[in-house]
Amino acid sequence: MYNFSAVVEYDGTDFKGFQQQPGNVRTVQGELFKALGILAPGFSRFSYAGRTDAGVHARHQVIGFGCREALNIYRFSWKLNCLLPDDITVKNISRAAEDFDARKSAKMRQYSYYVVNNSCQSVFLKKYSILITRKLDICAMREAADMFTGVKDFTAFCNDNLKSGHNIREIYSCAVKRFSGELIEFKISANAFLYNMVRIMVGTLLEIGEGKRDAGSIKKAFKSKIRKDAGRIVPAKGLFLTKVTY
Amino acid sequence: MYNFSAVVEYDGTDFKGFQQQPGNVRTVQGELFKALGILAPGFSRFSYAGRTDAGVHARHQVIGFGCREALNIYRFSWKLNCLLPDDITVKNISRAAEDFDARKSAKMRQYSYYVVNNSCQSVFLKKYSILITRKLDICAMREAADMFTGVKDFTAFCNDNLKSGHNIREIYSCAVKRFSGELIEFKISANAFLYNMVRIMVGTLLEIGEGKRDAGSIKKAFKSKIRKDAGRIVPAKGLFLTKVTY
Repeated sequence: MYNFSAVVEYDGTDFKGFQQQPGNVRTVQGELFKALGILAPGFSRFSYAGRTDAGVHARHQVIGFGCREALNIYRFSWKLNCLLPDDITVKNISRAAEDFDARKSAKMRQYSYYVVNNSCQSVFLKKYSILITRKLDICAMREAADMFTGVKDFTAFCNDNLKSGHNIREIYSCAVKRFSGELIEFKISANAFLYNMVRIMVGTLLEIGEGKRDAGSIKKAFKSKIRKDAGRIVPAKGLFLTKVTY
Repeated sequence: MYNFSAVVEYDGTDFKGFQQQPGNVRTVQGELFKALGILAPGFSRFSYAGRTDAGVHARHQVIGFGCREALNIYRFSWKLNCLLPDDITVKNISRAAEDFDARKSAKMRQYSYYVVNNSCQSVFLKKYSILITRKLDICAMREAADMFTGVKDFTAFCNDNLKSGHNIREIYSCAVKRFSGELIEFKISANAFLYNMVRIMVGTLLEIGEGKRDAGSIKKAFKSKIRKDAGRIVPAKGLFLTKVTY
């Protein structure tokens, strides 16, 4: 058995999320399985770092899979991308350790969320960001973002109803950056994330930037562990999985 | 008569260029005329800074137009963008001088061309860049790019067969920048450009980066004024009009 890892990039717009689903549902995993099934029949032990939701994009998702035969990586990669649809690309295929599992072996995941804070949306960003016309207070959002870092119970900041185990996660960093063209990036890295966690964290920060709540409300939500004490959930289309490290 | 200027952003993929054409041809100007005709019937003196070709994009095209009535700019802008299709946005509408003409008044135009120099194309850049898998020599292209600057006769670097006047243009700067993800940007600013000029300049630089010609061949083409002494023309989809100044 030969083990491989690869980076997968996809435009989530036309996918019902990463994970394969029963029925006639277009997913990233489904498309990968179709192509891998042709080029590496009998591939096994498929794993992936992050189960992104419907509409969420990835610049850097990581997958793992096993093959019975050694692959000519360059040719395999070329053929795989020829078979895959236009909105998925597989990059950096390489041999992985015997026990590599894209999810279990991951040490850090990073997501970015994009907001255009202007009177109108950009033609090139409208599929990849949300528009907020009300002027956002960047400084207030930055200060509040710091309150997310560290080891905390994120029960209030997720939609995980079927809790298996605990909701404690470690946020390594949570940064708010402003780019030209009134583009704002929320960049969050953690050991792992709960269901909808990034989108609820960003929604909470936006409500602070809009002056609808103060930073103290984050502390309150951490304490109460009640979902409605946190902010709104923002749409999937602004979210990108941008890095996974091992 | 009230004169206005505005910035127009568009994804050129599904347009047969900026300029209106007879028949059932989708152009940026055609779409703007439809929307302006509804919101500002009888608008006049329409002008635009650069006649971009089929498939060329714009982050910053400038238009000018006259109205018989003063506009509530904020409301007009909002309505205009509601009427326009998803691949055009109008921004920064403002009052302009009596004699403003988006083309004649322009002092500088800037274009950027994007190349992904990698073994595979990026999902997010494939509509906005070309892929070159052969490793490009950035230093050689940078050195050669310098040879374009200044006041020169660009006859060899354009496809203008119907010459009206001369082919002398002044290039203010021609820079080659490398970004992460193996993205290369060619950024060129000039007083004005000839037909296909940017795409032929970039094609020539790429042939230098690929080792197929040397920088001396640029000098030769300037001297001979023969189109075939310059390099190939690169596809439209990598080209953006990025700035116009007045």
